[in-house]
Amino acid sequence: MTTIADIGKRLGVSKSTVSKALNNAPDISENLRKTIVETAVEMGYSKLRQNRKEAKKLCILIENMDYTNDLHFGYHIIVGFRQLAEPSGYQVDVVPLDNEMQRATGFDAFMLQHHYLGAFILGMSLNDPWMNDLQASRTPAVLYDNYVPENPTTCYVGIDNSEGMNLAVKHLKSLGHRNIGYLSTSLGSYITQVRHRAFFSALKKNGLKSDPRLAGISYYVSECVRRNVPKLLDQGVTAIICCHDQMANAAMVQCREAGIKIPEDVSIVGFDDLPMCAYTEPPLTTVRQDQLLLGKCGYHALESLLDGVPVGTLLLHASLVTRQSCGTAARQKG
Amino acid sequence: MTTIADIGKRLGVSKSTVSKALNNAPDISENLRKTIVETAVEMGYSKLRQNRKEAKKLCILIENMDYTNDLHFGYHIIVGFRQLAEPSGYQVDVVPLDNEMQRATGFDAFMLQHHYLGAFILGMSLNDPWMNDLQASRTPAVLYDNYVPENPTTCYVGIDNSEGMNLAVKHLKSLGHRNIGYLSTSLGSYITQVRHRAFFSALKKNGLKSDPRLAGISYYVSECVRRNVPKLLDQGVTAIICCHDQMANAAMVQCREAGIKIPEDVSIVGFDDLPMCAYTEPPLTTVRQDQLLLGKCGYHALESLLDGVPVGTLLLHASLVTRQSCGTAARQKG
Repeated sequence: MTTIADIGKRLGVSKSTVSKALNNAPDISENLRKTIVETAVEMGYSKLRQNRKEAKKLCILIENMDYTNDLHFGYHIIVGFRQLAEPSGYQVDVVPLDNEMQRATGFDAFMLQHHYLGAFILGMSLNDPWMNDLQASRTPAVLYDNYVPENPTTCYVGIDNSEGMNLAVKHLKSLGHRNIGYLSTSLGSYITQVRHRAFFSALKKNGLKSDPRLAGISYYVSECVRRNVPKLLDQGVTAIICCHDQMANAAMVQCREAGIKIPEDVSIVGFDDLPMCAYTEPPLTTVRQDQLLLGKCGYHALESLLDGVPVGTLLLHASLVTRQSCGTAARQKG
Repeated sequence: MTTIADIGKRLGVSKSTVSKALNNAPDISENLRKTIVETAVEMGYSKLRQNRKEAKKLCILIENMDYTNDLHFGYHIIVGFRQLAEPSGYQVDVVPLDNEMQRATGFDAFMLQHHYLGAFILGMSLNDPWMNDLQASRTPAVLYDNYVPENPTTCYVGIDNSEGMNLAVKHLKSLGHRNIGYLSTSLGSYITQVRHRAFFSALKKNGLKSDPRLAGISYYVSECVRRNVPKLLDQGVTAIICCHDQMANAAMVQCREAGIKIPEDVSIVGFDDLPMCAYTEPPLTTVRQDQLLLGKCGYHALESLLDGVPVGTLLLHASLVTRQSCGTAARQKG
């Protein structure tokens, strides 16, 4: 169990400083107090909750996403959410979600049974049973990368994918690429649909040719790169944007095995900026999603809904992290 | 000057209750405290600020929008913003904006000179000089109904216009309308462009015919309705959505003068839900923008930016207020 001493050690401050911060003593700077409280939450210090008389409860419902260690995509989203929620007096339960449990109980009923005031929902796909419930639910729910129209108690939180895709296309265009392809898993989730649309919008916005054949889509990542990378290259594509980093990495492996050099022969861009992107071969240029900030936005949005402010969309600015997987366009067929 | 007694009188609570709330006494409910603090801000009670040692300063920059009395569109946006900002220790200055002042000083320089930590900007048009500055500015700025791409220190706040337009089109479709027109002032502002695009997207989404001639656009409201209402009716349009309530009201006046009955002959929908909408002839069905909530969202977004969280878009759910200006489609030419 984390102690005050552990927190002090991690931050290089004394136990009494940590204690002061956690007890809102006035003789400590606001910045230091915030850092200490956020670190305490991240390290699992539990006094923060026990101090409250009756904890108000929120839940993070999660599926299709790993989150148990800090290399997993969901890990820092959850940390960011808890860093704001717990110091505000909420108990946050992380609840793995599956279809069976969704079919057994309606969303509102589940929330009521467990005394959850609101939910932050990660990783739900469009055909999850609760996606239907959420059309007319009445318990505040913030959805990461999912949008429910016309329900004032739901909010969509994510990065601005249009902006991110546009940054990627602009970057490739500045390197001389005119013929850009796209690889995606099946369009069965809200976010794959959004990115797919954003890809073609970004091509148009940048005055590049936009042809449906520029997108290669398959259910499995391995199948997608095997079938579509050769096709795209045959069409004279000199750069490929991928729906996520795993796809980008698979595309790079596929190219390497076929003797196609990155970035000399083809440039590759990913999406998400997973920790592995700094270590792929070559390191991957990608659109960044800051998971800690996404978690904080999730809490801000939920706080607004709980406060009766019907926020519907909250998007973070996107940014592009440039590494070594993109180069100037050399090879031009098409 | 507002006193504690004035606030108590307005809310029907004692002076000591007001005093307790303003001094964060523990024996008062959180809801009552919030109501009292928000009312104190709205009534201009100034002790809230004076209590602080050194006030942190924010500004609301405003142009092209009236805000001095509670029938004006900007009034409650400003109240909502101040209701959250002032109790958080900020001094909020409302600064009227004009082109001359923008040409005289850059945005960042202006903010620095006046010690403003951040701005909430209302009513700016796309050709305002500072719209250029904001592409690369570094002082947190939240823009109502304006979007600056790729600058992590700016955020766009507004209602979800796509959702609002879709609610309007769906409503008209449910009344049997298949041929819907649109009236707009010139597309010289971000928001008129967004609504214009949203109109055609909503037609497509609802499976209705989408023809560029369905939109009538002119610089002046009076000219717009005079030129375009007869044209749209000649095309067999049975319902008209307007870019804002003033346009809708002008269209209704124009129809009435021409002996065209509303809603029997043509249905009219506005946008904004200005106070007058309940009193037009007939009362106007319109897409609501809740100004108080927009102001609160403006503060939430600015708070995030000041905290280093690069929120880029924060949209409120839209809602449709149905009154008497829409009826079943009777008259079908086209």
